[in-house]
Amino acid sequence: MYKLVLIRHGESTWNKENRFTGWADVDLTEQGINEARQAGRLLQSAGYTFDIAYTSVLKRAIRTLWHIQDEMDLLYLPVTHSWRLNERHYGALTGLNKAETIAQYGAEQVLQWRRSYETSPPPLAPSDPRTSYSDQRYVKIPQSELPLAECLKDTVARVLPLWNDSIAPAIKAGQRIIIAAHGNSLRALIKYLEGISDQDILSMNIPNGVPLVYELDATLKPVSRAYLSAQEDLKQAQKTPAGHGQAA
Amino acid sequence: MYKLVLIRHGESTWNKENRFTGWADVDLTEQGINEARQAGRLLQSAGYTFDIAYTSVLKRAIRTLWHIQDEMDLLYLPVTHSWRLNERHYGALTGLNKAETIAQYGAEQVLQWRRSYETSPPPLAPSDPRTSYSDQRYVKIPQSELPLAECLKDTVARVLPLWNDSIAPAIKAGQRIIIAAHGNSLRALIKYLEGISDQDILSMNIPNGVPLVYELDATLKPVSRAYLSAQEDLKQAQKTPAGHGQAA
Repeated sequence: MYKLVLIRHGESTWNKENRFTGWADVDLTEQGINEARQAGRLLQSAGYTFDIAYTSVLKRAIRTLWHIQDEMDLLYLPVTHSWRLNERHYGALTGLNKAETIAQYGAEQVLQWRRSYETSPPPLAPSDPRTSYSDQRYVKIPQSELPLAECLKDTVARVLPLWNDSIAPAIKAGQRIIIAAHGNSLRALIKYLEGISDQDILSMNIPNGVPLVYELDATLKPVSRAYLSAQEDLKQAQKTPAGHGQAA
Repeated sequence: MYKLVLIRHGESTWNKENRFTGWADVDLTEQGINEARQAGRLLQSAGYTFDIAYTSVLKRAIRTLWHIQDEMDLLYLPVTHSWRLNERHYGALTGLNKAETIAQYGAEQVLQWRRSYETSPPPLAPSDPRTSYSDQRYVKIPQSELPLAECLKDTVARVLPLWNDSIAPAIKAGQRIIIAAHGNSLRALIKYLEGISDQDILSMNIPNGVPLVYELDATLKPVSRAYLSAQEDLKQAQKTPAGHGQAA
Protein backbone atom coordinates (compact mmCIF):
# COMPACT_ATOMS: atom_id res chain seq x y z
CA MET A 1 0.00 0.00 0.00
CA TYR A 2 1.40 3.36 -1.06
CA LYS A 3 0.55 6.87 0.07
CA LEU A 4 0.55 9.91 -2.18
CA VAL A 5 -0.14 13.49 -1.10
CA LEU A 6 -1.50 16.09 -3.51
CA ILE A 7 -1.85 19.75 -2.66
CA ARG A 8 -3.21 22.68 -4.61
CA HIS A 9 -1.27 25.91 -4.01
CA GLY A 10 -2.56 28.37 -1.42
CA GLU A 11 -4.66 31.34 -2.48
CA SER A 12 -2.93 33.45 -5.14
CA THR A 13 -3.36 37.14 -5.85
CA TRP A 14 -5.41 36.30 -8.94
CA ASN A 15 -7.55 33.72 -7.13
CA LYS A 16 -8.44 36.60 -4.86
CA GLU A 17 -9.21 38.91 -7.80
CA ASN A 18 -11.11 36.11 -9.54
CA ARG A 19 -8.99 36.35 -12.68
CA PHE A 20 -8.06 33.54 -15.08
CA THR A 21 -4.43 32.79 -14.19
CA GLY A 22 -3.27 29.74 -16.10
CA TRP A 23 0.43 30.06 -16.82
CA ALA A 24 0.70 33.64 -15.50
CA ASP A 25 3.21 33.47 -12.68
CA VAL A 26 1.44 35.24 -9.83
CA ASP A 27 2.41 34.82 -6.19
CA LEU A 28 0.54 33.74 -3.04
CA THR A 29 -1.48 36.14 -0.92
CA GLU A 30 -0.93 36.34 2.86
CA GLN A 31 -3.85 33.94 3.22
CA GLY A 32 -2.23 31.63 0.68
CA ILE A 33 0.98 31.61 2.71
CA ASN A 34 -0.99 30.82 5.87
CA GLU A 35 -2.80 27.96 4.10
CA ALA A 36 0.51 26.50 2.95
CA ARG A 37 2.08 26.72 6.40
CA GLN A 38 -1.00 25.18 8.01
CA ALA A 39 -0.79 22.31 5.50
CA GLY A 40 2.84 21.77 6.48
CA ARG A 41 2.00 21.73 10.18
CA LEU A 42 -0.85 19.26 9.60
CA LEU A 43 1.37 16.92 7.60
CA GLN A 44 4.11 17.19 10.20
CA SER A 45 1.84 16.54 13.17
CA ALA A 46 0.16 13.62 11.37
CA GLY A 47 3.60 12.00 11.03
CA TYR A 48 4.08 12.36 7.29
CA THR A 49 7.45 12.67 5.67
CA PHE A 50 8.55 12.66 2.03
CA ASP A 51 11.43 11.41 -0.08
CA ILE A 52 10.78 13.55 -3.15
CA ALA A 53 8.45 16.30 -4.28
CA TYR A 54 7.05 17.33 -7.62
CA THR A 55 5.78 20.76 -8.50
CA SER A 56 5.12 23.01 -11.49
CA VAL A 57 7.41 25.80 -12.69
CA LEU A 58 4.98 28.41 -11.31
CA LYS A 59 5.84 30.21 -8.11
CA ARG A 60 2.48 29.88 -6.36
CA ALA A 61 2.94 26.09 -6.33
CA ILE A 62 6.68 26.19 -5.58
CA ARG A 63 6.24 28.66 -2.73
CA THR A 64 3.44 26.54 -1.29
CA LEU A 65 5.86 23.61 -1.31
CA TRP A 66 8.62 25.75 0.26
CA HIS A 67 6.37 26.68 3.17
CA ILE A 68 5.43 23.02 3.64
CA GLN A 69 9.11 22.01 3.51
CA ASP A 70 9.89 24.71 6.04
CA GLU A 71 7.19 23.59 8.51
CA MET A 72 8.28 19.94 8.10
CA ASP A 73 12.00 20.76 8.38
CA LEU A 74 12.54 19.16 4.97
CA LEU A 75 14.40 21.91 3.13
CA TYR A 76 16.74 19.29 1.65
CA LEU A 77 13.88 17.41 -0.08
CA PRO A 78 14.73 16.72 -3.74
CA VAL A 79 12.21 18.62 -5.86
CA THR A 80 11.37 18.10 -9.53
CA HIS A 81 9.87 21.15 -11.26
CA SER A 82 7.92 20.32 -14.38
CA TRP A 83 5.87 22.49 -16.75
CA ARG A 84 3.63 19.42 -17.13
CA LEU A 85 2.20 20.20 -13.67
CA ASN A 86 1.41 23.82 -14.59
CA GLU A 87 -2.15 25.08 -14.37
CA ARG A 88 -4.33 24.67 -17.46
CA HIS A 89 -3.34 27.34 -20.01
CA TYR A 90 -6.21 29.81 -20.34
CA GLY A 91 -5.08 31.31 -23.64
CA ALA A 92 -6.52 34.73 -24.42
CA LEU A 93 -8.51 34.66 -21.16
CA THR A 94 -5.27 34.89 -19.15
CA GLY A 95 -5.53 37.89 -16.85
CA LEU A 96 -9.24 38.58 -17.44
CA ASN A 97 -11.72 38.44 -14.58
CA LYS A 98 -15.11 36.84 -14.99
CA ALA A 99 -16.95 40.10 -15.70
CA GLU A 100 -14.38 41.13 -18.34
CA THR A 101 -14.61 37.72 -19.94
CA ILE A 102 -18.38 37.87 -20.19
CA ALA A 103 -18.23 41.41 -21.57
CA GLN A 104 -15.71 40.34 -24.20
CA TYR A 105 -17.02 36.93 -25.23
CA GLY A 106 -20.65 36.77 -24.05
CA ALA A 107 -22.22 34.79 -21.22
CA GLU A 108 -23.16 31.79 -23.32
CA GLN A 109 -19.64 31.28 -24.67
CA VAL A 110 -18.15 31.58 -21.18
CA LEU A 111 -20.63 29.02 -19.87
CA GLN A 112 -19.60 26.65 -22.65
CA TRP A 113 -15.90 26.97 -21.76
CA ARG A 114 -16.68 26.26 -18.13
CA ARG A 115 -18.95 23.26 -18.86
CA SER A 116 -16.94 21.56 -21.54
CA TYR A 117 -14.05 19.13 -21.23
CA GLU A 118 -12.96 19.52 -24.83
CA THR A 119 -13.53 23.19 -25.70
CA SER A 120 -10.46 25.41 -25.43
CA PRO A 121 -10.64 29.13 -24.81
CA PRO A 122 -9.34 31.29 -27.69
CA PRO A 123 -5.57 30.80 -28.08
CA LEU A 124 -2.99 33.49 -27.53
CA ALA A 125 -1.55 34.90 -30.73
CA PRO A 126 2.03 33.59 -31.09
CA SER A 127 3.18 37.22 -30.88
CA ASP A 128 1.27 37.87 -27.63
CA PRO A 129 3.59 38.88 -24.78
CA ARG A 130 1.69 36.42 -22.58
CA THR A 131 3.11 33.40 -24.47
CA SER A 132 5.84 31.31 -22.84
CA TYR A 133 8.18 31.33 -25.82
CA SER A 134 10.75 33.77 -24.49
CA ASP A 135 10.55 32.64 -20.86
CA GLN A 136 13.80 31.03 -19.70
CA ARG A 137 12.02 28.22 -17.87
CA TYR A 138 10.47 26.92 -21.10
CA VAL A 139 13.35 27.33 -23.56
CA LYS A 140 14.26 23.64 -23.60
CA ILE A 141 10.71 22.58 -24.47
CA PRO A 142 9.87 22.37 -28.19
CA GLN A 143 7.54 25.25 -29.14
CA SER A 144 5.15 22.72 -30.63
CA GLU A 145 4.58 21.32 -27.12
CA LEU A 146 3.98 24.70 -25.49
CA PRO A 147 0.24 25.44 -25.48
CA LEU A 148 -1.35 28.73 -26.51
CA ALA A 149 -4.60 27.61 -24.83
CA GLU A 150 -5.85 24.37 -23.31
CA CYS A 151 -9.08 22.61 -22.57
CA LEU A 152 -8.97 20.21 -19.63
CA LYS A 153 -8.49 17.32 -22.05
CA ASP A 154 -5.26 18.96 -23.26
CA THR A 155 -4.07 19.41 -19.69
CA VAL A 156 -4.70 15.72 -18.97
CA ALA A 157 -2.70 14.80 -22.07
CA ARG A 158 0.39 16.72 -20.98
CA VAL A 159 0.23 15.82 -17.28
CA LEU A 160 0.07 12.05 -17.84
CA PRO A 161 3.52 11.55 -19.40
CA LEU A 162 5.07 12.93 -16.19
CA TRP A 163 2.93 10.55 -14.12
CA ASN A 164 3.74 7.54 -16.26
CA ASP A 165 7.43 8.22 -16.87
CA SER A 166 8.49 9.60 -13.51
CA ILE A 167 5.98 9.78 -10.65
CA ALA A 168 4.36 6.33 -10.90
CA PRO A 169 7.71 4.48 -11.14
CA ALA A 170 9.01 6.46 -8.15
CA ILE A 171 5.96 5.55 -6.06
CA LYS A 172 6.39 1.89 -6.99
CA ALA A 173 10.03 2.16 -5.94
CA GLY A 174 8.78 3.11 -2.47
CA GLN A 175 9.35 6.87 -2.62
CA ARG A 176 7.00 8.91 -0.47
CA ILE A 177 5.83 11.74 -2.68
CA ILE A 178 4.08 15.09 -2.39
CA ILE A 179 2.84 16.88 -5.50
CA ALA A 180 2.23 20.63 -5.15
CA ALA A 181 0.33 21.82 -8.20
CA HIS A 182 -2.82 23.53 -9.49
CA GLY A 183 -6.56 23.04 -9.65
CA ASN A 184 -6.60 21.64 -13.17
CA SER A 185 -3.30 19.73 -13.24
CA LEU A 186 -4.49 17.98 -10.06
CA ARG A 187 -7.91 17.37 -11.61
CA ALA A 188 -6.08 15.77 -14.53
CA LEU A 189 -4.20 13.42 -12.21
CA ILE A 190 -7.27 12.61 -10.12
CA LYS A 191 -9.37 11.95 -13.23
CA TYR A 192 -6.79 9.42 -14.36
CA LEU A 193 -6.22 7.83 -10.93
CA GLU A 194 -9.92 7.42 -10.13
CA GLY A 195 -11.24 6.92 -13.66
CA ILE A 196 -13.62 9.88 -13.36
CA SER A 197 -15.71 10.73 -16.44
CA ASP A 198 -15.04 13.75 -18.68
CA GLN A 199 -18.22 15.34 -17.37
CA ASP A 200 -17.88 14.58 -13.65
CA ILE A 201 -14.33 15.88 -13.39
CA LEU A 202 -15.52 19.38 -14.33
CA SER A 203 -17.54 19.71 -11.12
CA MET A 204 -14.75 18.52 -8.85
CA ASN A 205 -13.31 21.44 -6.90
CA ILE A 206 -10.03 21.08 -5.07
CA PRO A 207 -9.61 23.54 -2.19
CA ASN A 208 -6.48 25.69 -1.96
CA GLY A 209 -3.78 24.51 0.41
CA VAL A 210 -5.41 21.39 1.87
CA PRO A 211 -3.41 18.13 1.64
CA LEU A 212 -5.29 15.39 -0.20
CA VAL A 213 -4.04 11.97 0.83
CA TYR A 214 -4.45 8.92 -1.41
CA GLU A 215 -3.80 5.36 -0.42
CA LEU A 216 -2.89 3.36 -3.54
CA ASP A 217 -2.70 -0.37 -4.04
CA ALA A 218 0.19 -2.16 -5.73
CA THR A 219 -1.13 -1.19 -9.18
CA LEU A 220 -1.55 2.44 -7.99
CA LYS A 221 -5.34 2.17 -7.96
CA PRO A 222 -6.78 4.39 -5.19
CA VAL A 223 -8.04 2.51 -2.14
CA SER A 224 -8.98 5.64 -0.21
CA ARG A 225 -8.72 9.39 -0.37
CA ALA A 226 -9.13 12.01 2.34
CA TYR A 227 -8.40 15.65 2.90
CA LEU A 228 -6.12 16.26 5.86
CA SER A 229 -7.73 19.01 7.91
CA ALA A 230 -7.49 20.42 11.40
CA GLN A 231 -10.39 19.30 13.58
CA GLU A 232 -12.06 22.73 13.49
CA ASP A 233 -11.74 22.93 9.69
CA LEU A 234 -13.31 19.49 9.36
CA LYS A 235 -16.29 20.52 11.45
CA GLN A 236 -16.63 23.67 9.36
CA ALA A 237 -16.48 21.67 6.15
CA GLN A 238 -19.17 19.30 7.35
CA LYS A 239 -21.47 22.27 7.91
CA THR A 240 -20.77 23.86 4.51
CA PRO A 241 -21.04 21.34 1.68
CA ALA A 242 -18.75 23.26 -0.67
CA GLY A 243 -16.01 23.67 1.92
CA HIS A 244 -12.72 21.96 2.63
CA GLY A 245 -12.79 18.28 3.38
CA GLN A 246 -15.65 17.55 1.04
CA ALA A 247 -15.18 14.35 -0.96
CA ALA A 248 -16.14 16.13 -4.18
CA MET B 1 34.63 31.51 -21.18
CA TYR B 2 32.36 30.24 -18.41
CA LYS B 3 31.07 31.97 -15.28
CA LEU B 4 30.53 30.24 -11.95
CA VAL B 5 29.07 31.85 -8.84
CA LEU B 6 29.90 30.55 -5.35
CA ILE B 7 28.22 31.81 -2.21
CA ARG B 8 28.71 30.96 1.43
CA HIS B 9 25.45 30.91 3.41
CA GLY B 10 24.43 34.02 5.36
CA GLU B 11 25.20 34.32 9.06
CA SER B 12 23.82 31.36 11.04
CA THR B 13 22.78 31.26 14.68
CA TRP B 14 25.95 29.37 15.55
CA ASN B 15 28.18 31.71 13.52
CA LYS B 16 26.79 34.40 15.78
CA GLU B 17 27.45 32.35 18.91
CA ASN B 18 30.90 31.40 17.59
CA ARG B 19 30.22 27.67 17.92
CA PHE B 20 31.60 24.87 15.75
CA THR B 21 28.68 23.96 13.53
CA GLY B 22 29.80 21.44 10.92
CA TRP B 23 26.90 19.17 10.06
CA ALA B 24 24.59 20.55 12.78
CA ASP B 25 21.58 21.90 10.90
CA VAL B 26 21.19 25.40 12.34
CA ASP B 27 19.25 28.15 10.60
CA LEU B 28 20.08 31.67 9.44
CA THR B 29 19.88 34.71 11.72
CA GLU B 30 17.97 37.81 10.65
CA GLN B 31 21.28 39.23 9.48
CA GLY B 32 21.94 36.04 7.54
CA ILE B 33 18.59 36.39 5.78
CA ASN B 34 19.39 40.00 4.91
CA GLU B 35 22.80 38.99 3.54
CA ALA B 36 21.19 36.34 1.35
CA ARG B 37 18.54 38.72 0.00
CA GLN B 38 21.15 41.40 -0.67
CA ALA B 39 23.19 38.81 -2.59
CA GLY B 40 20.14 37.99 -4.67
CA ARG B 41 19.48 41.66 -5.43
CA LEU B 42 23.12 42.20 -6.41
CA LEU B 43 23.11 39.20 -8.76
CA GLN B 44 19.80 40.30 -10.24
CA SER B 45 20.85 43.90 -10.82
CA ALA B 46 24.19 42.79 -12.29
CA GLY B 47 22.25 40.79 -14.89
CA TYR B 48 23.07 37.28 -13.71
CA THR B 49 20.78 34.35 -14.22
CA PHE B 50 21.22 30.63 -13.63
CA ASP B 51 20.22 27.33 -15.21
CA ILE B 52 20.91 25.10 -12.21
CA ALA B 53 21.98 25.41 -8.59
CA TYR B 54 23.88 23.16 -6.24
CA THR B 55 23.70 23.28 -2.48
CA SER B 56 24.31 21.14 0.59
CA VAL B 57 21.63 19.30 2.57
CA LEU B 58 21.93 21.85 5.38
CA LYS B 59 19.23 24.46 5.77
CA ARG B 60 21.49 27.51 6.23
CA ALA B 61 22.80 26.98 2.69
CA ILE B 62 19.44 25.96 1.19
CA ARG B 63 17.65 28.91 2.75
CA THR B 64 20.35 31.27 1.49
CA LEU B 65 19.70 29.89 -1.98
CA TRP B 66 15.91 30.24 -1.54
CA HIS B 67 16.26 33.93 -0.70
CA ILE B 68 18.50 34.43 -3.73
CA GLN B 69 16.00 32.56 -5.95
CA ASP B 70 13.24 34.71 -4.53
CA GLU B 71 15.04 38.00 -5.23
CA MET B 72 15.94 36.81 -8.74
CA ASP B 73 12.44 35.45 -9.46
CA LEU B 74 13.98 32.02 -10.12
CA LEU B 75 11.90 29.80 -7.86
CA TYR B 76 11.72 27.20 -10.63
CA LEU B 77 15.52 26.79 -10.77
CA PRO B 78 16.48 23.08 -10.67
CA VAL B 79 18.46 22.51 -7.47
CA THR B 80 20.72 19.59 -6.61
CA HIS B 81 21.20 19.03 -2.87
CA SER B 82 24.31 17.04 -2.00
CA TRP B 83 25.87 16.08 1.33
CA ARG B 84 29.20 16.48 -0.49
CA LEU B 85 28.75 20.25 -0.24
CA ASN B 86 28.10 20.13 3.53
CA GLU B 87 30.34 22.06 5.89
CA ARG B 88 33.45 20.27 7.20
CA HIS B 89 32.36 17.80 9.90
CA TYR B 90 33.72 19.03 13.23
CA GLY B 91 33.32 15.72 15.08
CA ALA B 92 33.25 16.00 18.87
CA LEU B 93 33.69 19.77 18.63
CA THR B 94 30.22 20.13 17.09
CA GLY B 95 28.23 22.56 19.19
CA LEU B 96 31.16 23.79 21.33
CA ASN B 97 32.20 27.42 21.30
CA LYS B 98 35.82 28.43 21.23
CA ALA B 99 36.13 28.95 24.99
CA GLU B 100 34.54 25.56 25.72
CA THR B 101 36.85 23.90 23.22
CA ILE B 102 39.96 25.41 24.81
CA ALA B 103 38.74 24.44 28.28
CA GLN B 104 38.13 20.86 27.16
CA TYR B 105 41.11 20.23 24.88
CA GLY B 106 43.70 22.90 25.76
CA ALA B 107 44.82 25.94 23.78
CA GLU B 108 47.72 24.20 22.05
CA GLN B 109 45.57 21.38 20.71
CA VAL B 110 42.96 23.83 19.44
CA LEU B 111 45.65 25.87 17.70
CA GLN B 112 46.90 22.71 16.00
CA TRP B 113 43.41 21.87 14.68
CA ARG B 114 43.04 25.34 13.31
CA ARG B 115 46.49 25.46 11.67
CA SER B 116 46.61 22.01 10.17
CA TYR B 117 45.25 20.78 6.87
CA GLU B 118 45.50 17.13 7.84
CA THR B 119 44.63 16.94 11.55
CA SER B 120 41.03 16.00 12.32
CA PRO B 121 39.27 16.98 15.51
CA PRO B 122 38.29 14.03 17.76
CA PRO B 123 35.59 11.97 16.04
CA LEU B 124 32.08 11.52 17.33
CA ALA B 125 31.45 8.16 18.96
CA PRO B 126 29.25 6.12 16.58
CA SER B 127 26.60 6.11 19.33
CA ASP B 128 26.68 9.92 19.69
CA PRO B 129 23.29 11.49 18.96
CA ARG B 130 25.14 14.07 16.84
CA THR B 131 26.02 11.48 14.16
CA SER B 132 24.15 11.50 10.87
CA TYR B 133 23.32 7.79 10.86
CA SER B 134 19.64 8.03 11.70
CA ASP B 135 19.00 11.24 9.77
CA GLN B 136 16.66 10.66 6.82
CA ARG B 137 18.68 12.82 4.46
CA TYR B 138 21.71 10.54 4.78
CA VAL B 139 20.10 7.09 4.78
CA LYS B 140 21.05 6.29 1.19
CA ILE B 141 24.73 7.04 1.79
CA PRO B 142 26.87 4.08 2.94
CA GLN B 143 27.81 4.57 6.62
CA SER B 144 31.44 4.08 5.65
CA GLU B 145 31.25 7.33 3.64
CA LEU B 146 29.60 9.38 6.41
CA PRO B 147 32.32 11.15 8.42
CA LEU B 148 32.51 11.24 12.23
CA ALA B 149 35.03 14.11 11.96
CA GLU B 150 36.96 15.71 9.11
CA CYS B 151 40.12 17.67 8.51
CA LEU B 152 40.01 20.01 5.53
CA LYS B 153 41.82 17.38 3.47
CA ASP B 154 38.90 15.00 4.08
CA THR B 155 36.43 17.68 3.04
CA VAL B 156 38.33 18.27 -0.20
CA ALA B 157 38.26 14.52 -0.89
CA ARG B 158 34.46 14.26 -0.62
CA VAL B 159 33.65 17.54 -2.40
CA LEU B 160 35.69 16.77 -5.52
CA PRO B 161 33.68 13.78 -6.80
CA LEU B 162 30.62 16.05 -7.04
CA TRP B 163 32.66 18.63 -8.93
CA ASN B 164 34.16 16.09 -11.31
CA ASP B 165 31.07 13.94 -11.88
CA SER B 166 28.36 16.58 -11.99
CA ILE B 167 29.26 20.26 -11.70
CA ALA B 168 32.22 20.46 -14.10
CA PRO B 169 30.43 18.56 -16.90
CA ALA B 170 27.38 20.81 -16.45
CA ILE B 171 29.51 23.97 -16.74
CA LYS B 172 31.15 22.60 -19.88
CA ALA B 173 27.68 21.92 -21.26
CA GLY B 174 26.98 25.65 -20.94
CA GLN B 175 24.90 25.59 -17.77
CA ARG B 176 25.09 28.76 -15.69
CA ILE B 177 25.58 27.59 -12.12
CA ILE B 178 25.40 28.94 -8.60
CA ILE B 179 26.74 26.90 -5.68
CA ALA B 180 25.41 27.84 -2.23
CA ALA B 181 27.53 26.12 0.36
CA HIS B 182 29.79 26.54 3.39
CA GLY B 183 33.14 28.04 4.39
CA ASN B 184 35.07 24.80 4.14
CA SER B 185 33.29 23.07 1.26
CA LEU B 186 33.87 26.27 -0.75
CA ARG B 187 37.51 26.39 0.39
CA ALA B 188 37.80 22.82 -0.87
CA LEU B 189 36.48 23.82 -4.31
CA ILE B 190 38.58 26.98 -4.49
CA LYS B 191 41.72 25.12 -3.44
CA TYR B 192 41.18 22.71 -6.31
CA LEU B 193 40.18 25.34 -8.88
CA GLU B 194 43.07 27.69 -8.11
CA GLY B 195 45.66 25.12 -7.09
CA ILE B 196 46.17 26.74 -3.68
CA SER B 197 48.61 25.02 -1.30
CA ASP B 198 47.53 23.01 1.75
CA GLN B 199 48.91 25.76 3.97
CA ASP B 200 47.62 28.83 2.14
CA ILE B 201 44.05 27.58 1.90
CA LEU B 202 43.78 27.61 5.72
CA SER B 203 44.11 31.39 5.85
CA MET B 204 41.55 32.03 3.15
CA ASN B 205 38.33 33.37 4.66
CA ILE B 206 35.15 33.50 2.64
CA PRO B 207 32.64 36.08 3.86
CA ASN B 208 29.03 35.07 4.57
CA GLY B 209 26.51 35.85 1.87
CA VAL B 210 28.70 37.58 -0.72
CA PRO B 211 28.62 36.17 -4.28
CA LEU B 212 32.07 35.13 -5.50
CA VAL B 213 32.21 35.18 -9.29
CA TYR B 214 34.75 33.10 -11.23
CA GLU B 215 35.47 33.35 -14.90
CA LEU B 216 36.77 29.99 -16.12
CA ASP B 217 38.49 29.11 -19.37
CA ALA B 218 37.57 26.13 -21.55
CA THR B 219 39.48 23.76 -19.24
CA LEU B 220 37.73 25.34 -16.19
CA LYS B 221 40.94 27.06 -15.06
CA PRO B 222 40.08 30.38 -13.33
CA VAL B 223 40.83 33.48 -15.38
CA SER B 224 39.47 35.90 -12.80
CA ARG B 225 37.62 35.98 -9.53
CA ALA B 226 35.80 38.82 -7.81
CA TYR B 227 33.35 39.33 -5.00
CA LEU B 228 30.13 40.98 -6.10
CA SER B 229 29.46 43.78 -3.65
CA ALA B 230 27.36 46.89 -3.47
CA GLN B 231 29.43 50.05 -3.98
CA GLU B 232 29.21 51.03 -0.27
CA ASP B 233 30.24 47.55 0.85
CA LEU B 234 33.23 47.67 -1.47
CA LYS B 235 34.37 51.00 -0.03
CA GLN B 236 33.95 49.59 3.48
CA ALA B 237 35.92 46.50 2.56
CA GLN B 238 38.75 48.60 1.18
CA LYS B 239 38.98 50.41 4.51
CA THR B 240 38.88 47.22 6.61
CA PRO B 241 41.27 44.60 5.25
CA ALA B 242 39.41 41.65 6.78
CA GLY B 243 36.03 42.72 5.42
CA HIS B 244 33.88 41.60 2.53
CA GLY B 245 35.25 41.99 -0.92
CA GLN B 246 38.82 41.21 0.08
CA ALA B 247 40.60 38.89 -2.33
CA ALA B 248 41.74 36.68 0.59
